[in-house]
This record gives sequence, C-alpha cells and structure tokens, in this order.
Amino acid sequence: MKLVLVRHGQSEWNLQNRFTGWVDVDLSEKGTMEAKEAGELLKQEKIAFDQAYTSVLKRAIKTLHIILEEMDQLWIPEYKSWRLNERHYGGLQGLNKKETAEQYGEEQVHIWRRSYDTLPPELKEDHPLSQVHDRKYLYKAAVPHTENLKVTLHRVMPIWEDRIALDLLNGKNVIVAAHGNSLRALTKHLEHISDEDIMSLEIPTGCPILYELNDRLEIVDKKSFR
Amino acid sequence: MKLVLVRHGQSEWNLQNRFTGWVDVDLSEKGTMEAKEAGELLKQEKIAFDQAYTSVLKRAIKTLHIILEEMDQLWIPEYKSWRLNERHYGGLQGLNKKETAEQYGEEQVHIWRRSYDTLPPELKEDHPLSQVHDRKYLYKAAVPHTENLKVTLHRVMPIWEDRIALDLLNGKNVIVAAHGNSLRALTKHLEHISDEDIMSLEIPTGCPILYELNDRLEIVDKKSFR
Repeated sequence: MKLVLVRHGQSEWNLQNRFTGWVDVDLSEKGTMEAKEAGELLKQEKIAFDQAYTSVLKRAIKTLHIILEEMDQLWIPEYKSWRLNERHYGGLQGLNKKETAEQYGEEQVHIWRRSYDTLPPELKEDHPLSQVHDRKYLYKAAVPHTENLKVTLHRVMPIWEDRIALDLLNGKNVIVAAHGNSLRALTKHLEHISDEDIMSLEIPTGCPILYELNDRLEIVDKKSFR
Repeated sequence: MKLVLVRHGQSEWNLQNRFTGWVDVDLSEKGTMEAKEAGELLKQEKIAFDQAYTSVLKRAIKTLHIILEEMDQLWIPEYKSWRLNERHYGGLQGLNKKETAEQYGEEQVHIWRRSYDTLPPELKEDHPLSQVHDRKYLYKAAVPHTENLKVTLHRVMPIWEDRIALDLLNGKNVIVAAHGNSLRALTKHLEHISDEDIMSLEIPTGCPILYELNDRLEIVDKKSFR
C-alpha cells in the first residue's frame, strides 16, 4: 500500500511570514505552482490513488485538487476533516513572526514554535480571527483556542485510526494533503519519532513524501521528492 | 431546504459538436468562465451549502470546484458518483453530430437524441472510448454500453433516494453539479414531467437552477439563472 503525505503549497501568509494556524488563507501564486509540480512528480511515479484526505482549509484542498487534476485522478473519493487542519496557533494567529519575536523575545517565540507541549496564548472567542463561529465547525466544543503539537497529534489520530489506516489495510493507495503540523503528527506516529526529535523535522511546502507500507503498516520504503 | 442543480460549463466536445456521454472530456476555456459566473450568481444568493454532489467526470467536478471556490465553500463535503454521469451515448460517443446526421439521416439522429426510450447502438467493449476497463468503474457489470433517458433515470434515482433526498429532508442545502441528461432525470422526477415533455427540456451549460423545497420535497419556488 502506498501513502503520500503532502503539505500545501506556499500560502499568502507563509509569504508574509505570519502565524496562520486555522485562518483560512489562500495559496500564493508560488504555492499554486508548487502544487502543480507536486502533481507532475506523483504522475511520474504512476501511483493510482483510491482515496484522498484533506483538511477544511482551502490551501490544502486546492493543493489536493491541483495535484489530482495533474494526475487525471480528480474523480477519486475525497474526505475533508478539521482533524487534518494546521495546528491552531492561538493568540499568535495573524501575527508577523518577526514582530512577535521583537515583542515577546526570540526565545519565547522559539519555545512556542518548537516545544512539543508548551501552549501559546489562547485566541479569545470574540477575536476577529477566531473560528468558533465559523459554520464549517459544527461542534463548537471541539474547536481549539490554542494548540501545541501534542494536542494537535491527539486530534489528528482519530482520522488515522478510524479511516486512513483502515483504507491502507484494505489495500488502498491514499494521498493526504494537509499542513506542516498535522503531517508532523502523522509522521511522528508512522516513524516512531520521539517528542524531542519531532520538533526539528521540517516538512517543506508542496514536496510529497511517499511511503510504501506492509500489512502491519510498517514502513518498507520512503521517498521524499525534491 | 435549497437544492441547486447546475450543468457543467461548456466542454471541449460541446464546442466541437461531438457526442460525449461518458468520455471524460475537459472544460473549454468558455466552460471555465461559465462555471466562474455560476459561482458569482450563487454567491449573490448567499446560499450556505451543506453538501455537494457530482459525477466522476472532470467537466462536472471542475465546475463544482470552481463554483465552490468562488463562494468560499470549498470545504463542504462532496460526494462523487457514476450515477450522476452524463447519459451514456453508446456507439455515438466521439462522433461529430453533423457527420452522424449525414451518415444515419437527420431523423434517426433526432430519434436517438430526443426519444425517451430508444437506445443508440452499443459501444463495444474493445472500442478505444469504452469505459469498461477504466479503474474508476469498479463494478464492471454496472457500466452501460448505451443508454436512453429512461435508462439514465433508473440509474440516477438511487443516489436521489438514498442520499440527496435524505440530505434535503434533514434540512441540508445541496448543490448537484452534473450533466444535461442526469439533471434532466432529476428534474423529471422533481417536477413530475411526462416522458413526452422531458425531451424538449433544455438545460443550458453553467446556468444554475435553484429550488426551494418543503418537507415533502415539493417545489415551493424555482429560480433559473440567466
């Protein structure tokens, strides 16, 4: 069984160096190109996908659609879930990373970005960038106010356990188009990476990672593109 | 509850005046524009969709994605099914409509196009345009060799009965992006149109039809755009 993980192409806020999290920012022009290139790379691998997963954020959904169109596989079933959303960055969402470092200090920002279990400040419900009242999140109690990677991993795991892993065990080839931290969570689980080591793992935008798995979902082969 | 039916934008073979059926032809440039315009029209209506349906043919899937992107509703669940595919045009698939009229006579072609229950010649399984060996159709016994509107309606109805109607009865707003004849089939059922009258109903490309339905799925209001 083949599993492809791919982070969305560059977004407009990646470009502006802002904390994005659950804010539904579009792909930049470069991000659209990156997605197209990812599609070309996967097309050369001649992978026949059976199922696609993505988040409910347009930068991941559009990356998936661009890839699948390039591969002429737009027709495969796709399942979108908030569980694959980017890590919720709490009160940092919308802030420029450099300005935040000037305000809170380099070290504090480094901890927020790279500590496995430190939580950034919460995003208040009445903040204009809060997602609590967005109708795409029906069950409000599940909408986070802030997350670290540990919390992100806990809300990502159910979609792995209940759907993606089962699809793979049923012999399906699966593509997951998602975000830096939801993919870090999946990678940590798949590759048994420690809490310490996972935070230094960088998943670049628009670069697919192809896993070949055996019937116990152990990694037989791994290929990173670009 | 709101139901929107929309036929895909102009395809490359609409433009070339060829019988298309299940052949997976892309949108033309004009078709892409039509889809964008449909999205703008629906955006003005401020409809909040809960569920999308489309076929497994890219001209309908892309029309849906363009509309939803325009409305900033790309995140809604989408379900793709061969049951919403265009009518299978049998041995006529790929042929130019004018040349076919010269070969078989205007009247015969008119009957194939406009008779409710006359079947065009079958498409042989070894024909290069046959879909029997396409991996998107898993259950080969369900792949038609030719269809009239009557047969099309019979294979469309299960997705209405088992999914679309239930979504509407559960209070969801639904968009269906599909094809001239699969939408004719749905319209025939919804509006109780006779076998005779249905064949003169034209559904133009890229023009949404908005139904307001009551809780018995009777039409309370109907609005055709453009």
